[in-house]
Amino acid sequence: MRAGTVIMGALTLLLASTAHADDGYRLWLRAPASATAATATATAPAPASATVSLLGGSATLRLAADELARALPAGVAVTVATGADPSLAALRLPFARLGDEGYLVRRVTLHGQPTLLVAGNTDRGALYGAFALLRHLATGGTAADASLVSAPKVKLRVLNHWDNLDGTVERGYAGTSLWDWWSLPDLKDPRYVDYARANASIGINGTVLNNVNAKADSLTPRYIEKAAALADVFRPWGIKVYLSARFSAPIELGGLKTADPRDPAVAAWWKAKADEIYRAIPDFGGFLVKANSEGQPGPRDYGASHADGANMLAAAVRPHGGIVMWRAFVYADTDPEDRAKQAYTEFKPLDGTFADNVLVQVKNGAIDFQPREPFHPLFGAMPKTPLVMEFQVTKEYLGFATHLAYLGPLFEETLAARTGRGRETVASVVDGSSEGHRLTGMAGVANIGRDRDWSGSTFNQANWYVFGRMAWDPTLAAQPIAREWAQQTFGTDRRVVDTAVAMMMGSREAVVDYTGAFGLAHLMATGHHYGPGPWVDDLKRPEWNPVYYHKADRDGIGFDRTRTGSNAVAQYAPPVARRFADPRTTPERDLLWFHHVGWDRRMASGRTLWEDLVAHYDRGVAYVGDMRRQWDGVRAAVDAERWEKTATDLAVQEREARWWRDASLAYWMSVNGRALPAGAAAPEHDLAWYKAQHFAYVPGHHD
Amino acid sequence: MRAGTVIMGALTLLLASTAHADDGYRLWLRAPASATAATATATAPAPASATVSLLGGSATLRLAADELARALPAGVAVTVATGADPSLAALRLPFARLGDEGYLVRRVTLHGQPTLLVAGNTDRGALYGAFALLRHLATGGTAADASLVSAPKVKLRVLNHWDNLDGTVERGYAGTSLWDWWSLPDLKDPRYVDYARANASIGINGTVLNNVNAKADSLTPRYIEKAAALADVFRPWGIKVYLSARFSAPIELGGLKTADPRDPAVAAWWKAKADEIYRAIPDFGGFLVKANSEGQPGPRDYGASHADGANMLAAAVRPHGGIVMWRAFVYADTDPEDRAKQAYTEFKPLDGTFADNVLVQVKNGAIDFQPREPFHPLFGAMPKTPLVMEFQVTKEYLGFATHLAYLGPLFEETLAARTGRGRETVASVVDGSSEGHRLTGMAGVANIGRDRDWSGSTFNQANWYVFGRMAWDPTLAAQPIAREWAQQTFGTDRRVVDTAVAMMMGSREAVVDYTGAFGLAHLMATGHHYGPGPWVDDLKRPEWNPVYYHKADRDGIGFDRTRTGSNAVAQYAPPVARRFADPRTTPERDLLWFHHVGWDRRMASGRTLWEDLVAHYDRGVAYVGDMRRQWDGVRAAVDAERWEKTATDLAVQEREARWWRDASLAYWMSVNGRALPAGAAAPEHDLAWYKAQHFAYVPGHHD
Repeated sequence: MRAGTVIMGALTLLLASTAHADDGYRLWLRAPASATAATATATAPAPASATVSLLGGSATLRLAADELARALPAGVAVTVATGADPSLAALRLPFARLGDEGYLVRRVTLHGQPTLLVAGNTDRGALYGAFALLRHLATGGTAADASLVSAPKVKLRVLNHWDNLDGTVERGYAGTSLWDWWSLPDLKDPRYVDYARANASIGINGTVLNNVNAKADSLTPRYIEKAAALADVFRPWGIKVYLSARFSAPIELGGLKTADPRDPAVAAWWKAKADEIYRAIPDFGGFLVKANSEGQPGPRDYGASHADGANMLAAAVRPHGGIVMWRAFVYADTDPEDRAKQAYTEFKPLDGTFADNVLVQVKNGAIDFQPREPFHPLFGAMPKTPLVMEFQVTKEYLGFATHLAYLGPLFEETLAARTGRGRETVASVVDGSSEGHRLTGMAGVANIGRDRDWSGSTFNQANWYVFGRMAWDPTLAAQPIAREWAQQTFGTDRRVVDTAVAMMMGSREAVVDYTGAFGLAHLMATGHHYGPGPWVDDLKRPEWNPVYYHKADRDGIGFDRTRTGSNAVAQYAPPVARRFADPRTTPERDLLWFHHVGWDRRMASGRTLWEDLVAHYDRGVAYVGDMRRQWDGVRAAVDAERWEKTATDLAVQEREARWWRDASLAYWMSVNGRALPAGAAAPEHDLAWYKAQHFAYVPGHHD
Repeated sequence: MRAGTVIMGALTLLLASTAHADDGYRLWLRAPASATAATATATAPAPASATVSLLGGSATLRLAADELARALPAGVAVTVATGADPSLAALRLPFARLGDEGYLVRRVTLHGQPTLLVAGNTDRGALYGAFALLRHLATGGTAADASLVSAPKVKLRVLNHWDNLDGTVERGYAGTSLWDWWSLPDLKDPRYVDYARANASIGINGTVLNNVNAKADSLTPRYIEKAAALADVFRPWGIKVYLSARFSAPIELGGLKTADPRDPAVAAWWKAKADEIYRAIPDFGGFLVKANSEGQPGPRDYGASHADGANMLAAAVRPHGGIVMWRAFVYADTDPEDRAKQAYTEFKPLDGTFADNVLVQVKNGAIDFQPREPFHPLFGAMPKTPLVMEFQVTKEYLGFATHLAYLGPLFEETLAARTGRGRETVASVVDGSSEGHRLTGMAGVANIGRDRDWSGSTFNQANWYVFGRMAWDPTLAAQPIAREWAQQTFGTDRRVVDTAVAMMMGSREAVVDYTGAFGLAHLMATGHHYGPGPWVDDLKRPEWNPVYYHKADRDGIGFDRTRTGSNAVAQYAPPVARRFADPRTTPERDLLWFHHVGWDRRMASGRTLWEDLVAHYDRGVAYVGDMRRQWDGVRAAVDAERWEKTATDLAVQEREARWWRDASLAYWMSVNGRALPAGAAAPEHDLAWYKAQHFAYVPGHHD
């Protein structure tokens, strides 16, 4: 075939490397000028010509001014300041309400000129104000109508990077670690700045650099110097650096015979180590510790308590203003009566014994970041101890990077849960309002890596975003956050924004549905956690096996956590415990978490449990199909690269959702001997086929 | 401090993410329009308005036309075609000389109109012609003076990726593997296109996707499908996919009891496997095999020869037009008399026994990619066998990604070496002209990873570039290639180009100098090969220890490879063997490779060997200092991001060069008991300090 075709240069694509309309690198931080065009390219917008005045000279204030200078429309006059500036005194603005990190954005007259004031009590507050103003503009607001005031409800808003020193990321699905430990401290990758800026834009003010499964190496002088280089980059953005501390470091690095926290030599070693770290990083945040869990060393190795361990470390960092975040995710070496009970059993008695610069960090649920878990019974049970909420932003159990699952509803559901102590919610425990704690925190296990789009997909960026926003204010709702994220990420084309938000809002429930509804949990394959494995029953310890969690048999399914079973319900405050103790008052979404019930149990839908379970599997799969169709509908309005990648991911998600559904049903049928309800499609393969699927080199899994 | 500073929007930087003037992603492929500006930004150039006509409709021709359409200056008329097009017949152009992949660029008159014809006998030839024209323009040529004709001298121009299926890269220092095996075949990362385009632009036409230390998994259906997806992306760019084959795969995947190549069941398994691969990848290139080396399985496990193994595989791919590249880098499990002799000893007797679709792949030197090695004695010794030259583009022994070391002079030195058989050079062995082989090849162990700049530094990109250019024509010289690379990479600012070329041209010799001159080799630390370890003498096998290679004692230093020693010199053709057998006729640069000589030996410089060795260490360190000063001098003329990264790397290189020098001298002095020559600086630390340096998590090292 030959054809004489004339191609005009102007019609051809740009360089392959720049032809990608948008590679997702800019996250939600797009200039308003380009954000209004849904097909924004990677080229920089034309410089704005606002007039930005700066009262004060700190690096942080300058960053705030820079952000505004490039983004504000022409003709706008803006002033960036801290409340301490004498010229603001006469304005009588409500600085007292802003605390250390809050901001206000107000139209004021200064030196006789009208200006839009962006200010906080501190330069960090002003920086947050600048980003709040950008958000206001990118979500349909104007400079003329900008009147914003906000202060964070949670003091420590921290990412936990499960990043290893060899560059791998445990449960990371977005490439290798951002931190190039090898080239640090010499090379300060410009990407470190972009990371800090993105975090600052949503109010995150701390980052734990290394995996909670920590190596002692991170505490050696060489690595302290590397961490200090990162701290220097992050500091102007208001972000403190923390390290995960390996509890046995005094043995491994210090040559001591013990790491017993009651041993003065051990305490002295940690004190000297803390002093050393603070010499390099004067504003070092403190330590995060995973102790006596999944093989990690800890105080229990010496018969000491978690409080003994935490308080010893807290004493080491206290002179420098540091804190300790001590994880309650304990997972002991002995077989438990009920794994869900362990953390409460070990930590509840310690309430009131922790030093005042210790926070106990508790996962949202009692098992391990499943698609749905009831809120962790420790929330509300340790009133004398500040509890850090630990959410997993990376989707270890919700489809890795590939599946579209917006976690806002999961976070919201947990935070809004009532603990049963008066009007207390989990959010009010976390933000300290319930007990008046001033030291409060929320932690998110990061989904960030070296992938060009940071989080492995465009929609995964929303999970980073919503974590930051809810850490700032745990009472915010998931839906408006989804909307503001979509507006900033895709532009203000209403159809794209509406579509994205609609897809997002039901997406987590879809994962629940196609992996196992009604409180089923921990049904995944071994080790790498990729795909279904409800049949797994041959692992050494009982609670490693999915069959331990679902307890399905011919007659019924579910884990009896009432008095006839493990009585885990008793760990909740009485009103909640009573509700969970009775299958009739337990929300159906949590039914099989707390109860072993018959396959024929009648559900609210009118269907039997078995029929309803099948229906939920089908609903989950169908939801993904719907998302594909919705996404197809906005193809023309989204830049090619992000559209194509998302479409590919959705196709994979639909295939994998079907795999989850089919494999699970094939297994349940082998257990309950039942036929599928009329109209339900038979699994594509037989159970043996699903059991035979094995996967190597699965991302995020590092032994 | 407070100041009322007014910042105008137009003065501030762009988004942090786009503020990086140039992140190096575009490699040497920059539009002429932007290449003329040394401070080119990442924004796309304005579209050109040349008129590009296309005769023919293949995807490859369209790619060629696209390249030209976007890069050619306004007003130029260009026609892209294959020689088969009837409208060209009357022009009597020298298509016969172009072969399958050659090109011509000529001003012609077609249908009465003047046009610049870019053509080859095949669409691949035309694509190479388009890139040649772009190179011509970017290096100072004009469309008016373009008259180019070239055909590759080597048939297989292949990158070897030592990429593992888990995403790590053995001896890779530029991030993880480009291949995201997990998301393939669903996700076709746009970066795969950019990779193929970069290769096509320098004439590379094949890529071995996986590490020569191969896993059998890469031959499973799942991974064949993934490789096929890459092959589909690469095909329009003229690039074939190859796989490293694990020789024991019939056992691991096929359930056979043996992988003996003489067993009919084994041969049948490979034949079926080849058929399966070709069904998925019709133009699959073939297999690369590392057998019976460093623990890899191979035919010797069964008493069969390398030829038995290679020919069995060759029979499997022959029906499909495939080939086998069989590596001669054998490194047996038994202690050798002289490791440098092994490949020759095993392979020379096999000359003439290999099937005609087998090539034997030989490293440039007989040890392992040291900063300098004499050419491998197999070149010239196997006239009946096509030998693939294997160069290491990644710098395993030359400072990883960090050190600036342009490998063009190393490649040129090897290729220009005379084998001692008449006027034969290594290049004429490799390009087949010496013996009339038509199947010829050159392989480069890739330095490519997921780092944004592909190769870990801007100057490392030059090593990828020069490999491709010399594979196209092994008689090209390193200096002009450095110049054309610098012009395309930094723009045509003469001062920047001159500086870059000056830095590059002496840079490899500097590494030789600061790691150990005069033919010293294999002096690096154990395992990860980072930094000096000339003292290492406690590893299990003798040839794992640096002391085995330098044999330094109180009186002298060097490995006696003459008749009084291992007699490795006898592996060369007589004229070369005679020259290397006598220290007086051995080039000083190779002296200690072939001879054990006294510390007081008088060198050409007039100094003793000891004095001269010290002088070379100092020269090497000084060269790096000079590079830093030269680079400082062009700061204003190079974009900030690439300048800064390079400057940081050079500072690290100077520190590490000094470390190599000081550690080595401290050790040599401990051996020879000599003082440093007058004026030479004492090592910064004592020998014990250098010996005590240990490094974990070193890049590129995966056990």
